[in-house]
Amino acid sequence: MIKVEEAEKIILEQLRDYGSETVSFDNSMGRVLAENICADRDLPPFNRVTMDGIAIRYEAFKKGNRSFRVKATQSAGEQPIDINDNDECIEIMTGAVLPATTDTVVPYEQIEIKGGLAIIKVETISPGQNIHLKGKDKKQSEALVESNQFITPTILTIAATVGKTNLLVRKLPKIVIVSTGNELVDVSETPTPFQIRRSNDYTMQAALKQYMLNAKMLHLPDDPDIIEKELRSCIYEYDVIILSGGVSMGKYDYIPATLEKLQVKKLFHKVRQRPGKPFWFGTHEKGTLIFALPGNPVSTFICFQRYFLPWLKKSLKIEMNTSYAVLNEDFAFNADLQYFLQVKLVINESGELSATPLEGNGSGDFANLLQTDAFMELPLGTNDFKKGDVFRIWPFKNFM
Amino acid sequence: MIKVEEAEKIILEQLRDYGSETVSFDNSMGRVLAENICADRDLPPFNRVTMDGIAIRYEAFKKGNRSFRVKATQSAGEQPIDINDNDECIEIMTGAVLPATTDTVVPYEQIEIKGGLAIIKVETISPGQNIHLKGKDKKQSEALVESNQFITPTILTIAATVGKTNLLVRKLPKIVIVSTGNELVDVSETPTPFQIRRSNDYTMQAALKQYMLNAKMLHLPDDPDIIEKELRSCIYEYDVIILSGGVSMGKYDYIPATLEKLQVKKLFHKVRQRPGKPFWFGTHEKGTLIFALPGNPVSTFICFQRYFLPWLKKSLKIEMNTSYAVLNEDFAFNADLQYFLQVKLVINESGELSATPLEGNGSGDFANLLQTDAFMELPLGTNDFKKGDVFRIWPFKNFM
Repeated sequence: MIKVEEAEKIILEQLRDYGSETVSFDNSMGRVLAENICADRDLPPFNRVTMDGIAIRYEAFKKGNRSFRVKATQSAGEQPIDINDNDECIEIMTGAVLPATTDTVVPYEQIEIKGGLAIIKVETISPGQNIHLKGKDKKQSEALVESNQFITPTILTIAATVGKTNLLVRKLPKIVIVSTGNELVDVSETPTPFQIRRSNDYTMQAALKQYMLNAKMLHLPDDPDIIEKELRSCIYEYDVIILSGGVSMGKYDYIPATLEKLQVKKLFHKVRQRPGKPFWFGTHEKGTLIFALPGNPVSTFICFQRYFLPWLKKSLKIEMNTSYAVLNEDFAFNADLQYFLQVKLVINESGELSATPLEGNGSGDFANLLQTDAFMELPLGTNDFKKGDVFRIWPFKNFM
Repeated sequence: MIKVEEAEKIILEQLRDYGSETVSFDNSMGRVLAENICADRDLPPFNRVTMDGIAIRYEAFKKGNRSFRVKATQSAGEQPIDINDNDECIEIMTGAVLPATTDTVVPYEQIEIKGGLAIIKVETISPGQNIHLKGKDKKQSEALVESNQFITPTILTIAATVGKTNLLVRKLPKIVIVSTGNELVDVSETPTPFQIRRSNDYTMQAALKQYMLNAKMLHLPDDPDIIEKELRSCIYEYDVIILSGGVSMGKYDYIPATLEKLQVKKLFHKVRQRPGKPFWFGTHEKGTLIFALPGNPVSTFICFQRYFLPWLKKSLKIEMNTSYAVLNEDFAFNADLQYFLQVKLVINESGELSATPLEGNGSGDFANLLQTDAFMELPLGTNDFKKGDVFRIWPFKNFM
C-alpha cells in the first residue's frame, strides 16, 4: 500500500495537455487563460485629466497670474482644445485629454468662475498636478495579464479595456463520471428500504461546473458484462473516467478486474489513508486516465479534492498555492494511516487561520461535511495532534 | 461628508426581500437556499454494513464457534437474507442491509472461506462491529441543511440523497448597470485617441454572474434629457440601478441632479474614503435602490465590493463572516480619509493570513488590481500603519 505523497506523485506524472480554443470574452469567466493579454496602446492612452477644473500653463501661475479667461469647455471624449495665450484656460472634465498647450489642472475646489474668468484662490499648486500621464500604468504591447490563470471579473475588465473580445483559453478534458452499484437508484426515484439514492456523481458534476466543465454521468449496474462493454466505449470517448464505488474487496467489486481486462494499466490500488483507502488509479495507452474512487460519499469527495482537482489544475497549467491552518483542539487518531480530518475554518481577530475539527460518523456521513470547509492532512508517524500545531489544509469551500 | 460606517449603516437599512421561487436542484448551484432540506427517512435508512465479509450472530462467536456455514451471499441493494441457525452466516457486501437475525460483521481480512465454510481467524471481535446503525447520522424529518446559505456541491449532494429534486431559493433582484460618459466606446469599437473603452459595467456584470444574477447593461451619453428619460424607465423596470460615473463635480455630471428630479431621495453623497469618495446613494418610493458609484475603475470596484455586495448578501439573508489579515509591511497614508489598501494575501506556514500592500497608480490603474486579492480597510484616526498590525479585509478573489 503506497503513501499519500507517492499516490500524488504518480498521478502528477500523468499531466495532460488538451490544447486551447478561442471563446468570446464575455463567456470566458472561470476558464483558464492560454495567452497573455497585452495593452493595445499606452495606458492611459493620453495625458488624462483626473479632476474637474481648469487646465492652465504652470508657467503663467508661477509668473503671478491668478486670473484666466475661460476659452472653452472640454469634456471627456472630446478632441483637446488648445489655448493661445498664457492668461487663457480650458474648463476641463475628469477623463478628458489634457490639451498640449497646458500642463496643469486646478480643481473646482481651488477656483472661482465669474463672468468668463477663472480665479485661482490658493497660493500654491504643483506643476503637472491632477494629470495621469500617458503610459504611466503600462506601455503599448506590455502584458497586462499573464496566461495560466483562471479568468476572473478583473481579468475580464482588462480584456474589455484593450478590446480583446475573444480570448484563447485551455480546452477542458472530456470527463465521464461513472457510478456503480445495484443499491443505488436515481434521485427522482423512491428507493426500496434496501436502497439509497445516487449522489456522488451529482457532487462531482456540480464541483466540476465550478471549473466550467460539463461532465457526463453514467450509472451502471453490478453486472461485469455491462460494466466491461460501457467502460470500453468510455475509454475511447472520454479523456478521463471518474468512477465511484466497486473498488473494495466485495464480491461485486468488478471494477479493478474489468479495467485490467480492458488494458488499463494499474498505477496503484489502495493508499495508506483514511478515508479513501481503496482508491485505484490507472491509464490506458490511448491516453485515457481512470480515477476509480471508493464509493463512500466522504471518501469519494476527499479523493476528488485531494487527487483529481490538483491533477486537473496542473494539467490546465494553474499554479497551486499551499495553505496551512492552526489546529484549534487536540486530536488523536489511532491507526497507521494518513488521516484527513474534516475542519471548520475561521480567520480570527489575530489574522490566524484556525481549524476546528468536526468529526462525523465515518465515511458514510456526508451531512457532516456541510458544516466543514476543508480537510486537514494529518501526517503519518504520530497519532497525537496538539492544539496550536500547524498542518496543511485542502479547502473546498469559500469560508470568507 | 459621512464616514464609511455611516454609509454602510444607511445602505443596510435598505435591505429588501424579493421573495422566493422553486428551481430544479441540478440548476441551483450558487443560489441561496430558502428552505431547510430535511431527511426523508432515517440516515442511514437501515443498519448498513460497512465492510465486505460475513454477517453472524455475536452470541455464537462468544460461545466459541469459529466456523460458519455460508447460507447465501447478499449484496448491496438486495432484500436481507436471514439465518436460521447460530452456525450459519451470510456472505455480505458493503452497503447491504444487515439481516435482522445477525448483529456483527467480520471482514474478509479476518476470515478464510473454503468449501462453503467461513472460518474466523482472529481471537477477538466486537459485538456490532462494522455496522452503521439506522438513524445514527440523522433521524427522519431532521434538518440536514439549514436555509439561508449559498448552494454548494455538498448541499446539492444532500438534496440528491433525500430525493429533493426541486429547491426553494431566494428570488434575485432585477438589476441594471448603467454607465455614462461620451468618452466611453463599446468593447468591440476602436476608440479615437481621446476615448477609452467601457469596462466597469463588464466587471460588475461578471461579478454578479458569480451570484447567478444576470444584470442588464445600459450605456448612456452625457445628455441630460436622455439620462432622465432612460433612468425614469429603469426606476420602474428594475429593483436596483447601479450607475458608474457622472457623480463628481464635473459640468457633465448630471446624475445627482437628474436622480433628484426623478424623485429619488438622496440618502448620502460622498463618503470620507479613498478611493470612491463621490459615491451617491438613494432610494425611490417605488422601492428601487440607486447605487451611483464613481466612474474610476478602482473606485467603482471598491464601492461595489464594500457596499453593494454586502447589501445583496444581507438582502438574500446570507450571514457574512468578517475577516482580518496581518499587514506585512509598514504603510503610511496622509489624508483624513479612510483608505482602502490593495493587498496580496497568503497564508504562511504559521497559519497566519498575511497581507502585502501592492499600490498602483491611483484609481484609474485597474491593471494593478489583478495582482491583489483583497482591500484592507485602514481605519480613520491614524496615518501610520505598522507591519504586524491586524486590520479588516474585503477579499474579492479566492487566493487559496
